Amino acid sequence: MKIIVDAMGGDNAPLEIVRGALQANETYGVEIILTGRTEAVLRAISECGRKELPKGVEIANASEVVEMSDDPATAFKVKKDSSLTVGLNLLRDGKGDAFVSAGSTGALLSGATLVVKRIRGIRRAAMAPQVPVMGGKAVLCDCGANAECTLEYLVQFAFLGSYYAQHVMGIEKPRVALLNIGAEAEKGDELRRDTFARLQELSGEGRLNFVGNIEGSTAMMGGADVIVADGFSGNVMLKSLEGTGKFLYETMKGMFARSASTKIAAVLMKECINEFKDMLNPSEVGGTPFLGISKPVIKAHGASDALAILNAVRQARDFAQSGFIGDVERDVELMRVEKS
Amino acid sequence: MKIIVDAMGGDNAPLEIVRGALQANETYGVEIILTGRTEAVLRAISECGRKELPKGVEIANASEVVEMSDDPATAFKVKKDSSLTVGLNLLRDGKGDAFVSAGSTGALLSGATLVVKRIRGIRRAAMAPQVPVMGGKAVLCDCGANAECTLEYLVQFAFLGSYYAQHVMGIEKPRVALLNIGAEAEKGDELRRDTFARLQELSGEGRLNFVGNIEGSTAMMGGADVIVADGFSGNVMLKSLEGTGKFLYETMKGMFARSASTKIAAVLMKECINEFKDMLNPSEVGGTPFLGISKPVIKAHGASDALAILNAVRQARDFAQSGFIGDVERDVELMRVEKS
Repeated sequence: MKIIVDAMGGDNAPLEIVRGALQANETYGVEIILTGRTEAVLRAISECGRKELPKGVEIANASEVVEMSDDPATAFKVKKDSSLTVGLNLLRDGKGDAFVSAGSTGALLSGATLVVKRIRGIRRAAMAPQVPVMGGKAVLCDCGANAECTLEYLVQFAFLGSYYAQHVMGIEKPRVALLNIGAEAEKGDELRRDTFARLQELSGEGRLNFVGNIEGSTAMMGGADVIVADGFSGNVMLKSLEGTGKFLYETMKGMFARSASTKIAAVLMKECINEFKDMLNPSEVGGTPFLGISKPVIKAHGASDALAILNAVRQARDFAQSGFIGDVERDVELMRVEKS
Repeated sequence: MKIIVDAMGGDNAPLEIVRGALQANETYGVEIILTGRTEAVLRAISECGRKELPKGVEIANASEVVEMSDDPATAFKVKKDSSLTVGLNLLRDGKGDAFVSAGSTGALLSGATLVVKRIRGIRRAAMAPQVPVMGGKAVLCDCGANAECTLEYLVQFAFLGSYYAQHVMGIEKPRVALLNIGAEAEKGDELRRDTFARLQELSGEGRLNFVGNIEGSTAMMGGADVIVADGFSGNVMLKSLEGTGKFLYETMKGMFARSASTKIAAVLMKECINEFKDMLNPSEVGGTPFLGISKPVIKAHGASDALAILNAVRQARDFAQSGFIGDVERDVELMRVEKS
């Protein structure tokens, strides 16, 4: 198993990215290709306390870096020798099994779509992070790649999310729900009503385990394993839960600092407070896979530290060996929606 | 000041509704009209320990009750003698200054729109609750009344939310932001880009204090006083923050119960834990005003207890005496969007 890692992408590149990749190489025994300026990558490796390139780690030189100021739609093409484009080319050419980048989300998505390509028959790739919910995690699919969706996109996201939950998270019959503004079949707009009807049919045929419409509140309380959404409302849900988590964590921290007795409580609760924080920490949660691309591409958080990269590489490995893509390819005809 | 209260709406009607209304009459000195079956209302008043109708409290008999199973679009018309319809008629006829109901949201919205009517020139009424954010509260406008929106609706929601924040919440120059999936002007769909441009213009003319696009995360950290959204994504945000709050509160409670030492911490933190819970408690937050209706209508939470009704009546009073509706009527021409 060989994972390609964009050494130059993200706020803490290259040092933290390289550190995380080296840790993954040691911890999980996966081989690593680091893409980036050879000199910068070697310096980072030396700053990690390594005198030479560890066994199973190689560098693919790339002279350019995609910046956040570059146009995401064209950056991968304009900067042909960027760490991002070099990585995607290696993935397309079968030199590695998956690609991890903490760089520009938009550039990675465009590049993945146009260099690595989508699975034949899949209309759009979806971003599908695992979000923390009561009792575990749920796949939120899509959370921002497609602001505007059609019935077919949403039906395909339902399949992609369900297959991912099954193959990569090990959930046998994932409960698939449609994010909506009420539980009843007639809720929401026309797109939601059409999608509800189609998913209901597919569920009747045993192709999916559709449990109906779901509101954000029920979703957060663990009502589904897969939350199907257009990229706009999925992103609103994701950002709202991140923001609420941060707001409540800060509020709680303030409460623990309030008086002598609450400070004692803080000491007694130290472990729990850390656990609470970790639960909401994107570095722990791992990266966001682009479902629907013909090879595994994982977007790590822009602020990724070594731990986040370690987790994203593990996730990339799990994705690559899960059989997810093969099974989507096999069943893609079933995910079609005929135009009426 | 006279507030009309639907005594029969909500999960805890009539007892908790009547209890809250009587408390509001005592606490704030507002007069109350309770709509509902006279007998049931009198029984509730007696269960509250009152031998007779308190001064300033009257009953308007209504023989029917709108049930959650009734069609929300037509219930107010089919059940002409319901506590909801009787209350709306009294409001329309100037027998009271505002109407509070914990009954069916959809029925109340249809009824308010068709009986009390919208402010002339306002295209749609919006539901605009105050949501808890870092450092205070923000108005979320719309959060579910209009799943599908036009540019004009969103521009009007921006004005309605801003005027409400100014008049009722006392914020001098409310920061108005558009809920979107990124901060940049070109983010989101066409509707968002058009709305961004128009709000930008209005801000330039000094009509609004538009601070740009906002993501759910920044919104929760207190980045705006007014969050403008279509009813679909606004509802997703509202429900996600409610669900995340509940999930994290439950998680925290579990952590405090974990061991002997965390149980000691729970005792030391008792007051803070209650405060944390209250911050997320819809009963404390108050009701949701329908902005754009020509008279104040407040939807209290379906699960309202006496405290929630007390708060909703106070909010109705503040709304009624704020001058909000008069100022919207005066400026409504400025809220028009010419079809291009």
